[in-house]
Amino acid sequence: MNGDISSGFPDGEFAARTSAAQALMAQAGLSALLLTTEPEVRYYTGFLTRFWESPTRPWFVIVPAQGKPIAVIPSIGAHLMRQTWITDIRTWQAPDYDDDGVGLLADTLRAVTPQDGKIGLADQMESHARMPLGSLRQLKGALAQRRLVSDATITRRLRMVKSEAEIAKIRFACGIADRAFARVGEIAHEGTSLAQVFRKFQMLCLDEGADWVPYLAGAADQGGYGDVISPATDRPLTKGDVLMLDTGLVWSGYFCDFDRNYSVGAPSDTLQHAHDCLIAATQAAFDMARPGAVLSDMFQAMSAVINPDGEAMDAGRLGHGLGMQLTEWPSIIADDHTPLVPGMVLTLEPSINIGGGKIIVHEENIVIQSDGAAYLSTPQTHAMRVLE
Amino acid sequence: MNGDISSGFPDGEFAARTSAAQALMAQAGLSALLLTTEPEVRYYTGFLTRFWESPTRPWFVIVPAQGKPIAVIPSIGAHLMRQTWITDIRTWQAPDYDDDGVGLLADTLRAVTPQDGKIGLADQMESHARMPLGSLRQLKGALAQRRLVSDATITRRLRMVKSEAEIAKIRFACGIADRAFARVGEIAHEGTSLAQVFRKFQMLCLDEGADWVPYLAGAADQGGYGDVISPATDRPLTKGDVLMLDTGLVWSGYFCDFDRNYSVGAPSDTLQHAHDCLIAATQAAFDMARPGAVLSDMFQAMSAVINPDGEAMDAGRLGHGLGMQLTEWPSIIADDHTPLVPGMVLTLEPSINIGGGKIIVHEENIVIQSDGAAYLSTPQTHAMRVLE
Repeated sequence: MNGDISSGFPDGEFAARTSAAQALMAQAGLSALLLTTEPEVRYYTGFLTRFWESPTRPWFVIVPAQGKPIAVIPSIGAHLMRQTWITDIRTWQAPDYDDDGVGLLADTLRAVTPQDGKIGLADQMESHARMPLGSLRQLKGALAQRRLVSDATITRRLRMVKSEAEIAKIRFACGIADRAFARVGEIAHEGTSLAQVFRKFQMLCLDEGADWVPYLAGAADQGGYGDVISPATDRPLTKGDVLMLDTGLVWSGYFCDFDRNYSVGAPSDTLQHAHDCLIAATQAAFDMARPGAVLSDMFQAMSAVINPDGEAMDAGRLGHGLGMQLTEWPSIIADDHTPLVPGMVLTLEPSINIGGGKIIVHEENIVIQSDGAAYLSTPQTHAMRVLE
Repeated sequence: MNGDISSGFPDGEFAARTSAAQALMAQAGLSALLLTTEPEVRYYTGFLTRFWESPTRPWFVIVPAQGKPIAVIPSIGAHLMRQTWITDIRTWQAPDYDDDGVGLLADTLRAVTPQDGKIGLADQMESHARMPLGSLRQLKGALAQRRLVSDATITRRLRMVKSEAEIAKIRFACGIADRAFARVGEIAHEGTSLAQVFRKFQMLCLDEGADWVPYLAGAADQGGYGDVISPATDRPLTKGDVLMLDTGLVWSGYFCDFDRNYSVGAPSDTLQHAHDCLIAATQAAFDMARPGAVLSDMFQAMSAVINPDGEAMDAGRLGHGLGMQLTEWPSIIADDHTPLVPGMVLTLEPSINIGGGKIIVHEENIVIQSDGAAYLSTPQTHAMRVLE
């Protein structure tokens, strides 16, 4: 079977990820990893489907101490899973009100781990167990002496450093968004409702090659906006508005995540100054982003430009990891001292308070390379984009 | 504040949902409900955002024994939450590596529940706790004698029966998909790649008024297809293919979920017969769908037409609930004996094996009314849709 069909990666990519996890599992004394969420399952198997949108069925993959991962999944997914590099695929006819996969999962875990084995399950920040808590209790009971323990953040750590093939996908996704952002003038004018701008912008993303557009947020208001996570309203664009569009579109299973700001009519001096600060802050973080620097230094470099007084920020951070998910580990905050290493893909996302409860936010996507950073999004210049 | 802004419902809708939950909580001996997932939070608050796509931050809402729900959320969401009917909004600056909201959540739960109180958390099928397991352990420790227990499926049961306002939204979403399906001939022809059909179909959904298109699956192959959850490939449509598109598009926070099949060129007799069976099976379930009937009877009615020999089905069911999520409780399976009541919105989704590992699946959306059922999607006729 060919991993290319559903994932666009050669099988070797998944074998390498699995081996890397198994080395860390040995260090942590884990006999297996139990995976329950979309990105975890896809990371090791290449199983790519939008069917996770349905909350009905749990899906399980086990990474044993040696050998390929084992899929324990609803039968509706067997045909697609057989197109990945996974060969041991065990299924049940879900939903089953008597036993929705827990018995099959426990049998499989008992078969591939020793009696006193420890089975790692993600339990730290940015994780959750995508299975009913009742099923998790049943599973613990069915494992006898085996214990479910922390996965020691193994998958989170591996995913933080991307392969060249992953970076290529993210770069391609960024290029699609670059082209869509360049066409906003075609669809957004004074008088256009924000709801219509949102619909038409998603159409532009698809037209430029996105597979789908899982995330679009934005805002438009006079001189700035109140938040960056709201859905659209029917309010028409008005002269003096700043329109912000922030998209996480997907290509071949990988996200971009950046925004662009548009002034409706010529920007005021205040707005242009705020935009200048955001571009300068982004560039300050970019300039110091190289192996050996730490994330908190990037936070301080941006803060010095946009928030010299150190006020509390609603957003809570100034950027984050990016890849199979819209946001990934780590966060660019004062408390994150993770050293940068080649292959990390990050967003730089400074925001600035302009008074009156309003903010402006800017975002770019970068990759850490051996000799510094490179932009994956085409960086915004100081000159604001203007809509007429 | 006006619940209409973010949700399109009057505040009374959320007050009614909250009161209904509180009545069931009293019966179950629960002092509070703890909500962690997008649909649970939105159901009681109206908080509508696509920001849940980011896995970084946990979000919490507490339904106390009396009074309005209380939001315990990252500060990035405060501005939007203030536009709902919720007034008690407590925030922390997330992500916080030392305490990512657990302390604030525990303080709040202790303040609104008695010392020996029981706090309900969803733990049954179709649920999960959207927070790190490590945080859940910390929370249990911080609650002292208070116990986290099952939510007794209170929210799942309430959501299963829709209000007139909810049904209107689902009907509107279905209308958008109806119009998009009617235009597939504009974008799909012999030679068009399936990937391009997927992109263009999502553009049609947006053009017809969808807010976004969280779900699109489909397939195209000779005479039938292998599964219904795969992403698109670059394979071009070929004469003799059946193209299936299955969309869950969203309007104002509510989904439709139905599919349409298209024959590339005139359908073979075998294909037309399979399609006839699917339409007949759907109609058989529709005809018996009225208050007092049970779901398992609908399952049997469809099975008698499409699967008289009772073979195992990969899909595992023949339909499901629909609303704020693509799929909701209950499932149309032999083991579900839930009686139908007015306000239930269901999909009828029979599938038929045509041999050679191939299937054809058909799907409609219906609502249960006092005197029977009504279609929300415009029902497909026996005549197959044909692409040239």
